[in-house]
Amino acid sequence: MSSVEMGVMKPASNRAVILASGGLDSTVTAAIAKEEGCELFFLTMAYGQRHAVEVERARQVAAALGVVNHLVMELDLRAIGGSALTGWAAVPKDRAGHERSQGIPITYVPGRNLIFLSIAAAHAEVVGASFIYFGANVLDYSGYPDCRPEFIRAFETAVKEGTKAGIAGIPLRVKAPLLMLTKADIIRRGIALHVPFHLTHSCYDPVGEQACGRCDSCVIRREGFAKVGVVDPVSYAL
Amino acid sequence: MSSVEMGVMKPASNRAVILASGGLDSTVTAAIAKEEGCELFFLTMAYGQRHAVEVERARQVAAALGVVNHLVMELDLRAIGGSALTGWAAVPKDRAGHERSQGIPITYVPGRNLIFLSIAAAHAEVVGASFIYFGANVLDYSGYPDCRPEFIRAFETAVKEGTKAGIAGIPLRVKAPLLMLTKADIIRRGIALHVPFHLTHSCYDPVGEQACGRCDSCVIRREGFAKVGVVDPVSYAL
Repeated sequence: MSSVEMGVMKPASNRAVILASGGLDSTVTAAIAKEEGCELFFLTMAYGQRHAVEVERARQVAAALGVVNHLVMELDLRAIGGSALTGWAAVPKDRAGHERSQGIPITYVPGRNLIFLSIAAAHAEVVGASFIYFGANVLDYSGYPDCRPEFIRAFETAVKEGTKAGIAGIPLRVKAPLLMLTKADIIRRGIALHVPFHLTHSCYDPVGEQACGRCDSCVIRREGFAKVGVVDPVSYAL
Repeated sequence: MSSVEMGVMKPASNRAVILASGGLDSTVTAAIAKEEGCELFFLTMAYGQRHAVEVERARQVAAALGVVNHLVMELDLRAIGGSALTGWAAVPKDRAGHERSQGIPITYVPGRNLIFLSIAAAHAEVVGASFIYFGANVLDYSGYPDCRPEFIRAFETAVKEGTKAGIAGIPLRVKAPLLMLTKADIIRRGIALHVPFHLTHSCYDPVGEQACGRCDSCVIRREGFAKVGVVDPVSYAL
């Protein structure tokens, strides 16, 4: 008789909260979670001026992947940044790799992953999820302290000590399956999983319905697809 | 020559982010931070239906204590709770101590302190604060895993691993000076620090400008003032 049949252990939940932005990385992450047998609970943070299109794309991705639930939370992080973030509107264009690797990424908000993961952990407790999946990867890693594995482990410990489930011995695991992958690796993984790339949104500065093709995010995405040798289904203005 | 004069060590900032709700506990906590020599940066989370009066009281307390800045962030945590929190509107009244100690407090939101502390940590990084003060105390402690000292220490470690300041060796300390105090102890501390109790708001279910006098929060507050033997300046409907 297994310990589950004896009622001693609670069986692990296969529910996963996915931090879903409607972007390429979080969509591949969601597809990985699904492949790993998880029921998907999407959480989309609407946190700034450019969020409308991202939320809409996240909804389309959610529908395509067959999620159980999709929670959209509003939190205007621009207020935290104060005047330091007024530069958000000035999206750099046509930067080469060595330029992009310098300075703080345009989307940087101190503590953003800490905040988003905390909200995901709260949502996970409510829906009884055992996992959070999020799409951090090595491209972010260099500039973002809160993409480091050391941070992720420390965050798991804080959740263990700060939630009823954690104290009861039911751990919440935070999974970042893209952490060590390049953009080309991520796209290859997505192709294998039949990810609906045409629904994903990466551009920081869209021109109507089209991606601008020149911001850092567009440039990195296009370089990734070019390296893999497949056509990016997203429409670019330039 | 000290290490500071040599430019080797960055002097510790005396800036503190205060999680300020406009309530009695957070106001006493803010007064303690001020007494300990901190410059105060108030952070008020507006997170649900009853927040309007709390935010207004927090503004008045901020003015009375002479804060450097007061940031109000909106985050509707009711969405996280989903249907589990539809019971919020039913405020229990006239409960004795043994009744109050049973069940989940009405204000319970899974992960609330984790979320609020995460936002406070992000704000602390932006303004260069070395401390977060928050007003958790033993009355919450029994029911809230995220009021336990073990959680607070684990959270500090997560911040250390997940922020630029933390990685640079500049720690963020989370202080909960009321953690082991009863309500009467807190009120005595507040009296000694000349806290503007008349501005503080504790009631879950106010009647116009007056506190209801019968919800758990009112009952605990009134019992505290009665024990200390001073008059609560707040006006009660009953």
